[in-house]
Amino acid sequence: MENGLAERWGFRGSELVNKASAISIRSVLNEVMQNMDEEDLRPTIPLGHGDPSAFPSFRTTPIAEDAVSDALRSAKFNGYAPTVGILPARRAIAEYLSEDLPYKLSPNDIYLTIGCTQAIEVILTVLARPNANILLPRPGYPFYEAHAAYSSLEVRHFDLLPEKGWEVDLDAVEALTDENTVAMVIVNPGNPCGNVFTYQHLKKVAETARKLGILVISDEVYDHLTFGINPFVPMGVFGSIAPVITVGSISKRWIVPGWRLGWLVTNDPNGILEKYGIVDCIHLDLTETWKSTAIAIVFLKKFLSLFSPFQIVDCIKGFLNITSDPATFVQGALPQILEKTRGDFFSKIVNLLREAADVCYNRLREIPCITCPSKPEGSMFVMAKLNLSILEDIKDDVDFCIKLATEESVVVLPGVAVGMKNWVRVTFAVEPSSLEDGLGRIKAFCLRHAKMQ
Amino acid sequence: MENGLAERWGFRGSELVNKASAISIRSVLNEVMQNMDEEDLRPTIPLGHGDPSAFPSFRTTPIAEDAVSDALRSAKFNGYAPTVGILPARRAIAEYLSEDLPYKLSPNDIYLTIGCTQAIEVILTVLARPNANILLPRPGYPFYEAHAAYSSLEVRHFDLLPEKGWEVDLDAVEALTDENTVAMVIVNPGNPCGNVFTYQHLKKVAETARKLGILVISDEVYDHLTFGINPFVPMGVFGSIAPVITVGSISKRWIVPGWRLGWLVTNDPNGILEKYGIVDCIHLDLTETWKSTAIAIVFLKKFLSLFSPFQIVDCIKGFLNITSDPATFVQGALPQILEKTRGDFFSKIVNLLREAADVCYNRLREIPCITCPSKPEGSMFVMAKLNLSILEDIKDDVDFCIKLATEESVVVLPGVAVGMKNWVRVTFAVEPSSLEDGLGRIKAFCLRHAKMQ
Repeated sequence: MENGLAERWGFRGSELVNKASAISIRSVLNEVMQNMDEEDLRPTIPLGHGDPSAFPSFRTTPIAEDAVSDALRSAKFNGYAPTVGILPARRAIAEYLSEDLPYKLSPNDIYLTIGCTQAIEVILTVLARPNANILLPRPGYPFYEAHAAYSSLEVRHFDLLPEKGWEVDLDAVEALTDENTVAMVIVNPGNPCGNVFTYQHLKKVAETARKLGILVISDEVYDHLTFGINPFVPMGVFGSIAPVITVGSISKRWIVPGWRLGWLVTNDPNGILEKYGIVDCIHLDLTETWKSTAIAIVFLKKFLSLFSPFQIVDCIKGFLNITSDPATFVQGALPQILEKTRGDFFSKIVNLLREAADVCYNRLREIPCITCPSKPEGSMFVMAKLNLSILEDIKDDVDFCIKLATEESVVVLPGVAVGMKNWVRVTFAVEPSSLEDGLGRIKAFCLRHAKMQ
Repeated sequence: MENGLAERWGFRGSELVNKASAISIRSVLNEVMQNMDEEDLRPTIPLGHGDPSAFPSFRTTPIAEDAVSDALRSAKFNGYAPTVGILPARRAIAEYLSEDLPYKLSPNDIYLTIGCTQAIEVILTVLARPNANILLPRPGYPFYEAHAAYSSLEVRHFDLLPEKGWEVDLDAVEALTDENTVAMVIVNPGNPCGNVFTYQHLKKVAETARKLGILVISDEVYDHLTFGINPFVPMGVFGSIAPVITVGSISKRWIVPGWRLGWLVTNDPNGILEKYGIVDCIHLDLTETWKSTAIAIVFLKKFLSLFSPFQIVDCIKGFLNITSDPATFVQGALPQILEKTRGDFFSKIVNLLREAADVCYNRLREIPCITCPSKPEGSMFVMAKLNLSILEDIKDDVDFCIKLATEESVVVLPGVAVGMKNWVRVTFAVEPSSLEDGLGRIKAFCLRHAKMQ
């Protein structure tokens, strides 16, 4: 022991955390951005991530700011909130979401979360159990992969089909499912594909889930941000076919991701989530416990109290008890935000996105080495395929993005980050002038790197 | 398949989550409060939990409200923040905490979290590995037990000694430690005991940790809320003896737990956390990997890149990448909150707590069946022992609290919730008139249930 110091310190970082956190959009974007040329005096054009809140055109409505400020100033919301969220906020979300559903949600179907992020964390944690697997879309949103890895949930991927407007390959879903499959995830409107599922397709998703006995997790963080032919249909519409967990937030529709307010919703008019999901553990522990006690009545009482908590709903509440909550005064502002925001704010944002999607799609189509299989109709993104064979010195999508950042100070996301090698994800939700500028630079970059014919 | 419904749904709740979330102050308090008599027209006196924000005397300073409102209105903080927190906020915390330390913290030592809650979650998650154990105080704060259970960290308890002003039983710490012990936790100022550790005692804690090769996690969420002889000394003062992780927040000193802003701080001037903690995995994988490859150079390179992430610091960053963040505009307000809050606000709160602690201690001492081993000098709580032998019909602490709630509409926390059966934790951080009222009702209750002599 030199200088009295212990020779060995007994702590180290968790291997599981390191494995799980290796997968993230931010880490890939950080890698790309490290290659920026500091001597390039042009502004950086950030087409890599989905947060337009910094752009003047996308500033949130003053109604939302007023609501939060009023709640803060009221001094009613400085304290801890119930772990499921405060009742007025849960009631307001239930009413807001029920407008688009064939049944009424109750406040008890709603759990407030720290952005949509925590809602994803909650449901994946709650569903994890030894040997369980979950079906995720490819391309997809890597936060699901990270949290599945952290919860030791095995991930199986089904494809979204570019030639069918990025619809779910339902045959693959059936082929991948076995007795340990707990759920499938869809993201609608789509990140990273910018697609919007039709009513008919969502119905088929529900029917498939019912047939297979799995839950549907529907990520609707981009809800109502649609600007094509297909309107936004919440998956909860089909909650009577199969139970649906919806996750969402105010982050995207109100352009306030930094306010960290989201929700998890059980869309389950038949009460399946409360009835099922306890069969296996009952079976397992029954034999074990019978061996050790002959007093049937005592056992039965213990057994009921032991196993009722395995219900998904109780488990969600349990997990929320041991984790943090969204700021109480933002919860307090929610009824006013949901009720008072005017239609013209929403239509302004949707119109901006529609125009940006048009510009983005049309300008990308002019570039020979890039193919967009379909025009984006929702969210803030489009997936574009790189034709590397006609580029001179670009190895893959990461190489494309790094060189684009170095030479043109434009950031786009390499497809590998969302599971599609040699594609890129382009965000069009930026200030319109920046978008034009950025797309011009991408075109110049591609032409400069094109093979001589 | 009746009605086309799957006979079996493949999901169920996580056993691990249920096990972990079974332990929480809120669930125990909920149980107590369910026994309230609705026909009692007197106001309920909540002496069960540590959140005085609802009481007029404890309203936060307008300077903090202005800071948050200004940050919100600036529209600069509507977007996502870096996962470690925004730099100006981290810099402000580094400066604020360095005032009480013999060295300067850097912003890189600071990680912003969603209240102190998430800071605890982060450090326990990061330290968890197969077979690891952690030393927790008894009595303690059950959130640690819950998260240790969730992370599969084995918990071993050392006692806080009531006869020594709730000091740590350091002999027990030594006896409990083995090669798989990763850390010990202290809470200072103390929850639930209301004690404040002396400089000398904290130094001994650090020396013990150094001898044993374990990390000290110091929960200082009640920092500066001291009103007795011992001043608050941050554990980080001894960071050069043993590495210290401090967790804290603005929740208690500013009386705004609902704002959900906390921090995790590495107090480690010798850089131990970056140097150590990788020994075991190196040893383990060395043999394994040598078997499969003979190319020493390749192995060495791979080995270095593989194992550097096991550093605690990288692991903290990794975990923050896959979890949610505090609201960005509250982060944006932090520099103004820390720099501009005036001393008279802090002294008003400390004076209120001092007077409340005096009243609480003196009034509890008048009650024959209750013993307080020492007068609280910090935080918002006192632990009081029940002498059940002189009570007529009270079975234990839970029974005491339930009957007190039913008969007097006063809520106090059963000691079992913090690991001390047949004690109760009483919060004195409530409106002074309510405190008087509540203590009077407790006395009446005890006298009514006293055995006839």
